[in-house]
Amino acid sequence: MAERSSSVEVGVTFPRGFVAGAVAAGLRESGSGDDLALLFSKAPCAAAGLFTSSAFRAAPVVLSQRNLIDGRAQAVIANAGCANAYTGAEGYRDSEEMARLAASHLRLAGSGDRTASKLPVAESDVLVASTGVTGHRLPMEKIRAALPSIALDSDGGERFARAIMTTDTVPKQAAAVFAVGEREYRVGGCAKGSGMIHPNLATMLAFVTTDAPVERAFLEGTLREAAAVSFEMMTIDGDSSPNDSVIILANGLGGGSALGEGVEGATQFREAVERVCVALAKGMARDGEGATKLIEVEVAGAKTLADARIAARTVAGSPLVKSAVYGNDPNWGRVLAAVARSGADAEESRTSLFWQGFCLFQEGRLLPYDEEAVGAATNAPEVRIRVDLGLGSAVATAWGCDLTEEYVRINSEYTT
Amino acid sequence: MAERSSSVEVGVTFPRGFVAGAVAAGLRESGSGDDLALLFSKAPCAAAGLFTSSAFRAAPVVLSQRNLIDGRAQAVIANAGCANAYTGAEGYRDSEEMARLAASHLRLAGSGDRTASKLPVAESDVLVASTGVTGHRLPMEKIRAALPSIALDSDGGERFARAIMTTDTVPKQAAAVFAVGEREYRVGGCAKGSGMIHPNLATMLAFVTTDAPVERAFLEGTLREAAAVSFEMMTIDGDSSPNDSVIILANGLGGGSALGEGVEGATQFREAVERVCVALAKGMARDGEGATKLIEVEVAGAKTLADARIAARTVAGSPLVKSAVYGNDPNWGRVLAAVARSGADAEESRTSLFWQGFCLFQEGRLLPYDEEAVGAATNAPEVRIRVDLGLGSAVATAWGCDLTEEYVRINSEYTT
Repeated sequence: MAERSSSVEVGVTFPRGFVAGAVAAGLRESGSGDDLALLFSKAPCAAAGLFTSSAFRAAPVVLSQRNLIDGRAQAVIANAGCANAYTGAEGYRDSEEMARLAASHLRLAGSGDRTASKLPVAESDVLVASTGVTGHRLPMEKIRAALPSIALDSDGGERFARAIMTTDTVPKQAAAVFAVGEREYRVGGCAKGSGMIHPNLATMLAFVTTDAPVERAFLEGTLREAAAVSFEMMTIDGDSSPNDSVIILANGLGGGSALGEGVEGATQFREAVERVCVALAKGMARDGEGATKLIEVEVAGAKTLADARIAARTVAGSPLVKSAVYGNDPNWGRVLAAVARSGADAEESRTSLFWQGFCLFQEGRLLPYDEEAVGAATNAPEVRIRVDLGLGSAVATAWGCDLTEEYVRINSEYTT
Repeated sequence: MAERSSSVEVGVTFPRGFVAGAVAAGLRESGSGDDLALLFSKAPCAAAGLFTSSAFRAAPVVLSQRNLIDGRAQAVIANAGCANAYTGAEGYRDSEEMARLAASHLRLAGSGDRTASKLPVAESDVLVASTGVTGHRLPMEKIRAALPSIALDSDGGERFARAIMTTDTVPKQAAAVFAVGEREYRVGGCAKGSGMIHPNLATMLAFVTTDAPVERAFLEGTLREAAAVSFEMMTIDGDSSPNDSVIILANGLGGGSALGEGVEGATQFREAVERVCVALAKGMARDGEGATKLIEVEVAGAKTLADARIAARTVAGSPLVKSAVYGNDPNWGRVLAAVARSGADAEESRTSLFWQGFCLFQEGRLLPYDEEAVGAATNAPEVRIRVDLGLGSAVATAWGCDLTEEYVRINSEYTT
């Protein structure tokens, strides 16, 4: 497992046959930097996606869901700066045009890489993802002008990852390898956060690629399971967006026979995808808007997995817990308050709480502790909170970040 | 309806026969100001309460619920500075002692008011409410020393209201009158907020008094209905506390026959209690921690009342909406995002949105608007957001406040 800084060994172009690139189309308000990115696989891919649970889905989400019905895709065109959300039928036509422009660019240019497939890419095999300000139409003239100059490269993954950033301060990439017999397969991924993030995949874009051959149904199930312990266990501010998308592409260029339920290698593939998704989720939490710390909350001893998950997420999402962590204040009562309102089965007299390894509350009893020492231990880039409900054996982990004045500053000045 | 500043015509001592007082017991970390308060009715009251939905209830909540089983009460002893939460069996004994101390003070002193009842007050007719830091035992020696010096007065309502404040910046009081035939009855109330406030009555204490004679079951139903459109429609930060309590006392000293379901005056009583509770809820939202603005969110055109309520509350509680309002930024896309993730039935093409009276989105279509003008209109002490779902006739209103750097500052420095 790697969260490496190298642009070669992590990211969406780590698996064989994936190329990517980006261009500065001038879509951002700031006007600078790459903001239009293309990912392409030299072979058609089995593909699956998870999308926003919002009742209002942005145009690119609607289009990508349509293009995934056949379970295959070969390219993703993504942009930052404008989410193309709340833009109605005209916005949908803009997303369609983005897919069409990408498909004809790929047909004309091959992939800009000599080894690229020269087969025509169908418009319906292009997925679209947009992030940025909502309620504005895409500036299509800028996209039309810039898209044809995107050059694709087998180490273009980091450029892709950077181009989709909004208030993210660092690109989020991850990679994993797994072996089946003597074959080694690769899994890569990238994601952007960083506000409006919550269990229901709120304004995040994540792309996972692999060169393993994978049956479509198994691919979708694997993505769903991995998301349940990663993206859905991460929270920044509880808000959601109409654009959230997690997409996985498997091009099979690693060779071998297709992975499916019960087949040799299925477990290794599942674990590799999960490792990549967890790394991306932690990366997003760590880089939450204004965040200075990653908060990891483990809830153990729950009666059910659902209880463990909701309790962990509620603690990780509590503004009061987040503010306390920011202030190096081991205010553990706020953790108990969040557990108690989460809806999980809990009994005060069975509950124990650990804050950065210090046990502060044991089976309902206050324990004396050195406030200064615990406060000092909280002054760290990662703060771990562990709650044992003492009722069962289910465990879940959630990730969040501290709440800072900077979060407020960023979000009160976003569009103006 | 009044949210007056006069200490006589609002508050818990506005109705006949209620007296209150407070003392500085030194329970606050800051050490200054009244922090132990007593409310007493010269006649026994029909009484009802609503308490935290948290799985962990603080000792005073457990005790008050027990003492309300018989549907009657005559006094409330309340303190700020220490919530007596997560303190186990010892904490419960402390709450019991507070009730016992209050009862014997009332027996010995009468009410400190010549017209007070000289009848002994049963310990089981004393309710207890605590607010402040959790996870600490009450300093009972300070309470034992200070409680006997509380002097009760018929205009002591404001002193009571001030004594229970924590990070509140102003006391919250309200009053209403209603007539049944030629009789005029009074309803008064006070509350404290101001962080950790959310629909499920999160760390708020509210006390409502009336001199109307009211049947116990009807009193409880009335309180529940009023809370549903007031306290439960208010949100500061989505967090909850183990101490939340809303208590209503009806002493009947206004004379006449008991109000009950279907009896003349029942509707007037309901409306008066609702007006008081809404005024207290708005007061709490307006005075949310670090808040500079009250946000009022009306959701109309919903299929069901439940849809209208959850949508309004989700918008009012969205950190991104709250941050945008703070920054005078009419970022209405965030309002739509909150509606869309709320769980309420909604269709983008039927939805319209108004921001401070400006229609920015009409039945799914973007409307051109003057960003500067809408931004300037947002620079106001009250910001009104209205969403019409266009699907039905249900309407609900929720109240919240903006999210500011000051909220973060307050909550990262609370105990340290």
